[in-house]
Amino acid sequence: MKPSAGTATLGRVEPAVVELEPFELECGATLPELRIAYEAYGELDDERANAILVFHAISGDAHAAGLAAQADAPVAVDGIGAIERGIGHRSGIGWWDRLIGPGKAFDTDRYQVLCSNVVGGCRGSTGPSSLDPRTGRPYGSSFPVVTVRDMVRAQRLLLDELGIDTLLCVAGGSLGGMQALEWAVAHPDDVRSCVLSASTARLDTEGVALNAVARAAITADPMWRGGDYYATGAPAAGLAVARMLGHITYLSRQSMCEKFGRRLQDGDGYRYTLTEPEFAVESYLRYQGKQFVDRFDANTYLVLSRALTYFDLARSYGAGSLAAALAGASARFLLLSFSSDWMYPTADSLALLAALQENGADATHAEIESTYGHDSFLLEDDTQRDRIAPFLAETYAAVRA
Amino acid sequence: MKPSAGTATLGRVEPAVVELEPFELECGATLPELRIAYEAYGELDDERANAILVFHAISGDAHAAGLAAQADAPVAVDGIGAIERGIGHRSGIGWWDRLIGPGKAFDTDRYQVLCSNVVGGCRGSTGPSSLDPRTGRPYGSSFPVVTVRDMVRAQRLLLDELGIDTLLCVAGGSLGGMQALEWAVAHPDDVRSCVLSASTARLDTEGVALNAVARAAITADPMWRGGDYYATGAPAAGLAVARMLGHITYLSRQSMCEKFGRRLQDGDGYRYTLTEPEFAVESYLRYQGKQFVDRFDANTYLVLSRALTYFDLARSYGAGSLAAALAGASARFLLLSFSSDWMYPTADSLALLAALQENGADATHAEIESTYGHDSFLLEDDTQRDRIAPFLAETYAAVRA
Repeated sequence: MKPSAGTATLGRVEPAVVELEPFELECGATLPELRIAYEAYGELDDERANAILVFHAISGDAHAAGLAAQADAPVAVDGIGAIERGIGHRSGIGWWDRLIGPGKAFDTDRYQVLCSNVVGGCRGSTGPSSLDPRTGRPYGSSFPVVTVRDMVRAQRLLLDELGIDTLLCVAGGSLGGMQALEWAVAHPDDVRSCVLSASTARLDTEGVALNAVARAAITADPMWRGGDYYATGAPAAGLAVARMLGHITYLSRQSMCEKFGRRLQDGDGYRYTLTEPEFAVESYLRYQGKQFVDRFDANTYLVLSRALTYFDLARSYGAGSLAAALAGASARFLLLSFSSDWMYPTADSLALLAALQENGADATHAEIESTYGHDSFLLEDDTQRDRIAPFLAETYAAVRA
Repeated sequence: MKPSAGTATLGRVEPAVVELEPFELECGATLPELRIAYEAYGELDDERANAILVFHAISGDAHAAGLAAQADAPVAVDGIGAIERGIGHRSGIGWWDRLIGPGKAFDTDRYQVLCSNVVGGCRGSTGPSSLDPRTGRPYGSSFPVVTVRDMVRAQRLLLDELGIDTLLCVAGGSLGGMQALEWAVAHPDDVRSCVLSASTARLDTEGVALNAVARAAITADPMWRGGDYYATGAPAAGLAVARMLGHITYLSRQSMCEKFGRRLQDGDGYRYTLTEPEFAVESYLRYQGKQFVDRFDANTYLVLSRALTYFDLARSYGAGSLAAALAGASARFLLLSFSSDWMYPTADSLALLAALQENGADATHAEIESTYGHDSFLLEDDTQRDRIAPFLAETYAAVRA
């Protein structure tokens, strides 16, 4: 499938950076300064009532839509679906460009969409690879553990700087969906609606375990040096292994089988090699791992992977009860899950839906049939637009009524 | 659950080793000598018609039943189920002791059960850690790629040495089941029956991919040194990561969630740590990885992982058709799969069953309900005995009729 005509309709987008004060994190540590990189698409209305904040997932950044200002900037979207749909590496197209733009799910003719790089990130916001102003060297091993709550507090400060009090919608997939949930609970008066795509109120044991293996692959790399590798070279081998594993969890078994099967990379016969890629899927994973190393910081991957596993809405806000945690949320909720997503299964969305309904909240869930696995949230454009666009229109109409 | 009264009823078992001639492998390389370590339980009958050959999986060895001759010998069975069922590390109990012994699935009062360590192994048979007689040093990087066909050819030579022509049954789980299939097809006149547990005629794309990540974790470890690490120290960190990943694939999501949930390892509060195990499942995986490094050779893991991915019965014997590959097999087949095994799913067994039935073969399949995932083949004793014992009795009666 070719990219739709609407791809990158926004043209080139310049990132901006906001400098903030010292920032205390949930773990107790303090960052002496905080930079947050963000992008904005579309215009605020006169009442400043049409702002939508979207959140990126573990490998994303603030560049959610349009073309990156740097023509050769890499993008955070890859995988089978991305290849099929013409979203190539280094095309510079934002990771959610299929959903953000004129006439798309998040319609930039009607709304202003903002996206920032999370605290702990490596794409403009303060993270482990940033210079610590106290030492003049990269934070490295001294960068503290970051939580989803910290990400959201930083975003609240960013919006304060931008003069935006209320959000028409908070929206994200995967780790981004966790940030949307955190917003709805931590800042209930500031959020009119919440769109979760392929997300959950907490990872289950398997998700925690797979993240632990990915982090172990990085920390096992002697190049990692406890996190202080910026002068000596990145733990590329370990990060590549982590990304290979991540990729498998983002895809569905069906899409992997359909795309690669047991096809060999070269010719028809086995070459009998332990170390070279023999099967096409091995070559694909190796390529993905290598690409990722070129564009992403290993310490940021560790920090965001840990934030993913720590997030547990019921634990943080409800003493273990999801309904109690969500009791104060006043937003409308739209929950989307995907039939082939085994990491963030529909059951997780249904658990959220049940908790919201127990509170009498305005909440809807839809499972979208897709073979793209967890990557569906990046790739399913029409099916998500069909749910998101009317949901936003209704919310916006209610706000203006 | 405590170990059953029948556990380790065989007492201590002494391993034996057979020395064989130079051995040409499927890849074209030749091993200058071949040692095969094996164990035997029970006695041959007068007609030598009651021999059963069982095959171990990727982390196993010839010590399938009884107590190891060395009291502190480690065993290849671990995982949640093993802990629950009292099969501890270093207990010295064979990996299939729950199924092999007097009155068990493979009844050593009626049959002689044999098991050998595969070629490429690290527990007595010739493998990468063995001394190459041409150099006096371990093979290391010069050890060739091994296939399931090679394993079976070596076993055929072993049985020649032991004077056993015909096998009442060939049986194994996972990689062991692949060897059983290979026997039934490569030596159809020598095999009366074939028991496959949690196995397949070929791994699918996801299995190939996960094995590739596990191998990448090992080869990314600089200690691996292309395989020549025996004088410098093993790639322990990489092998531990590979084992952590393997473990997740052996367990079911349900059993992981039930056993660990999101329980913390220490106390009730987050410690906010990137590198220490915070969740109980993280601690468990780390422990499993560490244990494995103490007892297993990384090069053997690479070789056996590669053999797993290369095995493709339809490709090797049927020009892509599973039915054609199995056309010459004359054994009776019993196929067992487990409801929660996502790596070797029931669908794979059903594909085998359909191919066998297409050929008019005597083939039966049963899916056993179990929450243990792929590990079920090691742990489900009564449910497997209920199918295997009558299947063997019928086969034995037919042989003697």
